[in-house]
Amino acid sequence: MNEEVRHFVVQRAHGQGYEEMRDALVVEEPLEIRLNNIPLAVVMRTPGHDFDLARGFLLTEGVLQKQRAKSKEQTASIGEEIEIGHARDELGLEIPNVVNCRLPEISPADIAGWQRHIFASSSCGICGRASIARVRVEAPALHAAWQIPFPLLQGLPEKLRFHQTTFSRTGGLHAAALFSPAGDILVLREDIGRHNAVDKILGWALQQETPALAEHGLMVSGRLSFELVQKALLGGIGLMAGISAASSLAVELAEESGMTLVGFLRGDTAVIYSQPRRILFL
Amino acid sequence: MNEEVRHFVVQRAHGQGYEEMRDALVVEEPLEIRLNNIPLAVVMRTPGHDFDLARGFLLTEGVLQKQRAKSKEQTASIGEEIEIGHARDELGLEIPNVVNCRLPEISPADIAGWQRHIFASSSCGICGRASIARVRVEAPALHAAWQIPFPLLQGLPEKLRFHQTTFSRTGGLHAAALFSPAGDILVLREDIGRHNAVDKILGWALQQETPALAEHGLMVSGRLSFELVQKALLGGIGLMAGISAASSLAVELAEESGMTLVGFLRGDTAVIYSQPRRILFL
Repeated sequence: MNEEVRHFVVQRAHGQGYEEMRDALVVEEPLEIRLNNIPLAVVMRTPGHDFDLARGFLLTEGVLQKQRAKSKEQTASIGEEIEIGHARDELGLEIPNVVNCRLPEISPADIAGWQRHIFASSSCGICGRASIARVRVEAPALHAAWQIPFPLLQGLPEKLRFHQTTFSRTGGLHAAALFSPAGDILVLREDIGRHNAVDKILGWALQQETPALAEHGLMVSGRLSFELVQKALLGGIGLMAGISAASSLAVELAEESGMTLVGFLRGDTAVIYSQPRRILFL
Repeated sequence: MNEEVRHFVVQRAHGQGYEEMRDALVVEEPLEIRLNNIPLAVVMRTPGHDFDLARGFLLTEGVLQKQRAKSKEQTASIGEEIEIGHARDELGLEIPNVVNCRLPEISPADIAGWQRHIFASSSCGICGRASIARVRVEAPALHAAWQIPFPLLQGLPEKLRFHQTTFSRTGGLHAAALFSPAGDILVLREDIGRHNAVDKILGWALQQETPALAEHGLMVSGRLSFELVQKALLGGIGLMAGISAASSLAVELAEESGMTLVGFLRGDTAVIYSQPRRILFL
């Protein structure tokens, strides 16, 4: 269980024909996320760090914020009040690929509302937005003083590849990583879905004692889409970097929200789409 | 309206600092899909071919199949019975980024059911599957006799790049294309979301008089995930090819369903993940 790579017999084709070979494929399986034992959503993910994924998903769907608003006790961290475990059947046995999150302040009516509002999404879709007007959700204020020297930013793609162990075996995974102003990678997650990789990072960070998100940047392997910017903003990320292009709406949201967005981080150059103030040139 | 590329002023960074430049970004905007004037889903997409996108979305969510099952008149093509237009406000003016689809046999109760079941998805998510057990949906029987010589398959990535006009300007788009057994590209669509690009292709094909899907292959620019295979199967596609890796579940679904799945179509070689019988070696 929970392996990230599975071996298959495939055919390797060339000009003269094809031969059998063993190939390592990235594992993709559905994960059902339940809230107080009520099914909330199904995501296709690469197994591993499932509790972090569920926690990050609840953050980026606005569920944790609602729990916090309703809760009388003020806890230190928004991630602390949530209890996550494997869902269990009537015999008490774990149900594979199903996790249950317990948030006592959330009512079945709240959950029904989210179920309705967690709408269809494309690979850059809006998860959890009921209508166009509700797209831009509330995010915490971003840490303004955060800065990273440009040469350290330039070194990140290589560090990312170095840490991406599964990708190097399968070629099939997206990665997301938190990095410090010193250019060090704090944590990296890989997933067949690039949104999942970010949710796993955010869910992990919610469990940390230090405010990891406010003082770190987020590096992603895929395109910089609106929803990735939105997810990062909900986590309080002030700087997001990628090796590929940004979309129009991603740039508009980043600029309005005060997030530094950097793309095409390749070789000697990069494109700063918004808020260059967090990048230091010597 | 409906432009695919928008120009922004960005900063181009290099070792010594950064300078302003004009950059073409791929446009990303939400599209609300209404069914009989009831909001069904919001997808983030690149504007253009919105009616095809809506039609393909309704196919790959199983909505068209339901309409057909309930309808007494048997129409020639599953795409014909659907009427799609811009949604209009009370003054009769078009509402931007909102399309309405009219399917007279579909009831508000059906729509409410889909709304609930169009669950959250990651970038490889399951759109419209209510639970893990329902993931594998019914697909039409695949055309068995379809075959393409391997050298023609090898030529496709270059043809795809040649046709990808927006990508060459922005670097930010996924593409999907239908190709013939002679290796010709019939139609190509680009979108910030790779699922959308496939839905646009399927929605376009539904409007054609010839049974375009049964006798053509589908080429995609991104990773071969479970949901892309599922979408292609719902369209009746027998061969899907890509330049990148496949996931475990994508391969399992393709193999079980009789679809030929080819990845890593690069240079002289390729990986045939399932059903090599549709590829001809000389």
